[in-house]
Amino acid sequence: MNPTHIEHIGIAVKSLDEAIPFFSKMLGQECYAVEEVKEQKVKTAFFKVGQTKIELLESTDPEGPIGKFIEKKGEGIHHLAFAVPDVNQALKEAEEMGIKTIDKEGRKGAEGLKIGFLHPKSTYGILTELCSK
Amino acid sequence: MNPTHIEHIGIAVKSLDEAIPFFSKMLGQECYAVEEVKEQKVKTAFFKVGQTKIELLESTDPEGPIGKFIEKKGEGIHHLAFAVPDVNQALKEAEEMGIKTIDKEGRKGAEGLKIGFLHPKSTYGILTELCSK
Repeated sequence: MNPTHIEHIGIAVKSLDEAIPFFSKMLGQECYAVEEVKEQKVKTAFFKVGQTKIELLESTDPEGPIGKFIEKKGEGIHHLAFAVPDVNQALKEAEEMGIKTIDKEGRKGAEGLKIGFLHPKSTYGILTELCSK
Repeated sequence: MNPTHIEHIGIAVKSLDEAIPFFSKMLGQECYAVEEVKEQKVKTAFFKVGQTKIELLESTDPEGPIGKFIEKKGEGIHHLAFAVPDVNQALKEAEEMGIKTIDKEGRKGAEGLKIGFLHPKSTYGILTELCSK
């Protein structure tokens, strides 16, 4: 897969209105983008720490993936995303390694990235995202 | 606190012997260090992806923090560590922000870093570590 860096860390929060000022103060910077990703039923807010984005995720629907996650586990880290040169190639390599993939092919994610997910049961409990430009 | 980058992501695993070959293949690199941190009752193994280390954590004692974490939540992301210029200063700033700190002062961590933890109840469910050299 040859990940080059941690592209982002996705954090499930109940309310962006509460979480943005907190992370803004903690990270010493303003949130640089807010974006709704309708297919995922989330509103996202981004910060950047070195090479890595902090992506806050608020559910827009209790039945969406973040809504369900928070109901089950509470707020916290939801997924870890690696930047890879080519998401389709990386998904193929993951399958060859015996990793269960959620996506067979890259699809459109936030910030115009092409993304694909690996199943946490195959990756030590970590919902793992692969992203390429 | 002015974090400069994500220093590492700590991942709780049941067995380093199983997890090291998996992450080695997934990350396309060898694990570059294995270290026991007796005070934390863990054995750690390190990889590096861009600026960020992946720190696998195996418990050496079921009563240690990682042993208890796995018993309760299973394998997965255990903590998120930010590199800061000065851990003592950052802990002080965290307290001033109203964040509950686990450590009042930096203490010795893996790889010779000075570390301090923030309480996950204050940081959106994320056990947060601050590290400085």
